[in-house]
Amino acid sequence: MRELRTAEILAVGSELLTAHRLDTNSLFLTGRLNELGIDVRTKAVVGDDRGDLGAVLRDALARADLVVTSGGLGPTEDDLTREAVAEVLDLALDEDADVLASIRARFARRGFPMPERNRRQAFVPRGATVLPNANGTAPGLWIEAGERILILLPGPPRELQTIFETHAAPRLEARAPGQRLRRRVLKLTGRAESQVDEVAQPIYTPLTQNPVPIQTTILATPGQIELHLSARGTDVAAMDEALDAGVTQLAAALSPAVFSVDGRSLELVVGDLLNEKKWTIAVAESCTGGLVLGRLTEVPGSSAWVIGGVVAYANDVKLRQLGVAAPLLEEHGAVSEPVARAMAEGVAAALGADIGVAVTGIAGPSGGSDAKPVGTVVIAVAGAIDGVRTFRFLGDRQMVRLQSVAAALDLVRRKTSEVVLRKT
Amino acid sequence: MRELRTAEILAVGSELLTAHRLDTNSLFLTGRLNELGIDVRTKAVVGDDRGDLGAVLRDALARADLVVTSGGLGPTEDDLTREAVAEVLDLALDEDADVLASIRARFARRGFPMPERNRRQAFVPRGATVLPNANGTAPGLWIEAGERILILLPGPPRELQTIFETHAAPRLEARAPGQRLRRRVLKLTGRAESQVDEVAQPIYTPLTQNPVPIQTTILATPGQIELHLSARGTDVAAMDEALDAGVTQLAAALSPAVFSVDGRSLELVVGDLLNEKKWTIAVAESCTGGLVLGRLTEVPGSSAWVIGGVVAYANDVKLRQLGVAAPLLEEHGAVSEPVARAMAEGVAAALGADIGVAVTGIAGPSGGSDAKPVGTVVIAVAGAIDGVRTFRFLGDRQMVRLQSVAAALDLVRRKTSEVVLRKT
Repeated sequence: MRELRTAEILAVGSELLTAHRLDTNSLFLTGRLNELGIDVRTKAVVGDDRGDLGAVLRDALARADLVVTSGGLGPTEDDLTREAVAEVLDLALDEDADVLASIRARFARRGFPMPERNRRQAFVPRGATVLPNANGTAPGLWIEAGERILILLPGPPRELQTIFETHAAPRLEARAPGQRLRRRVLKLTGRAESQVDEVAQPIYTPLTQNPVPIQTTILATPGQIELHLSARGTDVAAMDEALDAGVTQLAAALSPAVFSVDGRSLELVVGDLLNEKKWTIAVAESCTGGLVLGRLTEVPGSSAWVIGGVVAYANDVKLRQLGVAAPLLEEHGAVSEPVARAMAEGVAAALGADIGVAVTGIAGPSGGSDAKPVGTVVIAVAGAIDGVRTFRFLGDRQMVRLQSVAAALDLVRRKTSEVVLRKT
Repeated sequence: MRELRTAEILAVGSELLTAHRLDTNSLFLTGRLNELGIDVRTKAVVGDDRGDLGAVLRDALARADLVVTSGGLGPTEDDLTREAVAEVLDLALDEDADVLASIRARFARRGFPMPERNRRQAFVPRGATVLPNANGTAPGLWIEAGERILILLPGPPRELQTIFETHAAPRLEARAPGQRLRRRVLKLTGRAESQVDEVAQPIYTPLTQNPVPIQTTILATPGQIELHLSARGTDVAAMDEALDAGVTQLAAALSPAVFSVDGRSLELVVGDLLNEKKWTIAVAESCTGGLVLGRLTEVPGSSAWVIGGVVAYANDVKLRQLGVAAPLLEEHGAVSEPVARAMAEGVAAALGADIGVAVTGIAGPSGGSDAKPVGTVVIAVAGAIDGVRTFRFLGDRQMVRLQSVAAALDLVRRKTSEVVLRKT
């Protein structure tokens, strides 16, 4: 039996060929196929057109050991994946009594008769194996075409993922090369991509020469950088060991910018630290307008450590709600270290939190000056921890805001973990 | 000269074949090609592998009148698009003295000598037209292969978009069919996709039978639905007239859920209404944790109408900062219409705003009860406008929060526009 080494992913649907939608199923499929040791060599998107679909399918089957399609299995006349596959592989389409019964049963459970058009979903290319769909009407299909495998999955992500995990992955496992992919992720903030690359390069160049070679990738988003390390092979224990050694080296070289090596988000790391200290937090935000609190409260259960906060967009709010002294504002301006400190102290006192955090800055596009250009942001923490920093962020309003949010969370993390380290 | 009717887009780069990155350049390219009357029939992603790239290029050129590639034009050995194209089309690669001079000049302006590896970027397939890159070192390339056109563009979006607009679009314009694509977008909130579809279906079915046929698409995201109308043809005035008539019909049928037919976001519509009334706004948020304020302050210049707000995650903050009476909280609970009203009134009074908005609810995953399940959210407005509504949103924590933000902004919009309409 031929080993499956290479795959091509094919997304079907004219809506994926507009200027508004991307095929995101391929990310899930790529991740899972890689874990099974199968390389994704190309991905394609094709519309609901039988000719195009047939041509792209033929090309894909000529290149790859495995082709996985998503979409085009619905009940409407636009859904042509079944027909195109039957044509390309020269297979008859037969109505499958079991599939038909399960579609009827699905409608019956909801108290409806099956619409006649859904009958199309019960047609199966001769010889195909049906992969039952627990969350929808269209089953997946597993087709062996000579030495190649073709898997057809419905487009809705919940249906696609469940069918893949339950029925496709175990079958692929038996046919995939013994190789497995293992991965580690370091998350960092507070450094530019080029700075991280400069530090990491001398470390990860030798890693690629390891007995267990390690591949590395940098992914940068505003306010966050991820270093992905991956190893491919058969000896999972050796791969894990090599990856952990790489993570340790990189974390040491890039400390304290690394905030997580276990997948946790920055807000979750902050929450875990606060939980550990049994501290509560309150936030005073100006230019970030609520986004720091928005990210902290993304964490389920954050009500245990987030008290709340004040968004002080108008100076008046800084005076009245946060108790910032008017002369301080007049002397230093709203975007200044003394005012940021006063805001952090003020919000902690007003809301009765252990830690106060303040963000004040100029997100742009207007409001900048020579002394304080757009991108100038001051962040302060007060209460159980203490600190203030002035940043000059680059980029547009959105970029400045996102970088400010990450910098605020990171200042809390660094100052809190210093205390956690010092006291334990 | 053959008219360009069909296109295939090809993104090159192994990072686009990971489980973490999508090719987003294709959205821009699709939108612009469609406007030029050129159909995008398929899209593909291929890694930095000369064999795969050659195979996919050959297939694309066999199918489409126009192939546009992005990426793989950098200075490293992984960047293989030039070489693969030269091989597939059997063209020699020549060093272009002008391109080399402009790359050298670019480095010189930054005070560096050109690294030797960048010399690769000066190689041009014989007969190709160079499309200068104002923002980077790799120029775009326009290659005529018989009756087909191949355009190679660098991957960074800013470089790709500028080269396309400046140099590729005008050339395509001359070769594209006389057809143009015109588009309108209606944005709605507060209705389910299926409800919108039910109302819109009887209207847009006849639109497809128009003398100028109109295509429609629904795009749904949490808290927002977009109806896209497009027409393709040569008579731009007739197309615009037909589209405007369609927009008018749909807006009337779906009013008041439609908040914009001119591209504006919900927060911008709210801001424009507040500007018009010269009203200021303050927000008290519980389950949305700052995201309503975060969205309002995304609008540049929002400091003219956003005073600020209070994120009252702990009940204590509702009492102390917002002046919600303790008996009210005890009697009705934090997620109740009386408390939401009191929060809206409290935040307007405390911050001195014309309008107060309050959001209180249960985003989950825990905290729900039989009477108030996860997804129960109460929204109130007070001050110059007045209203309160209780919602039961479906979905996970993130979905509930995003729908709550949209519902809060929408309640402000509806109540404010009632006043605007009544008084003018």
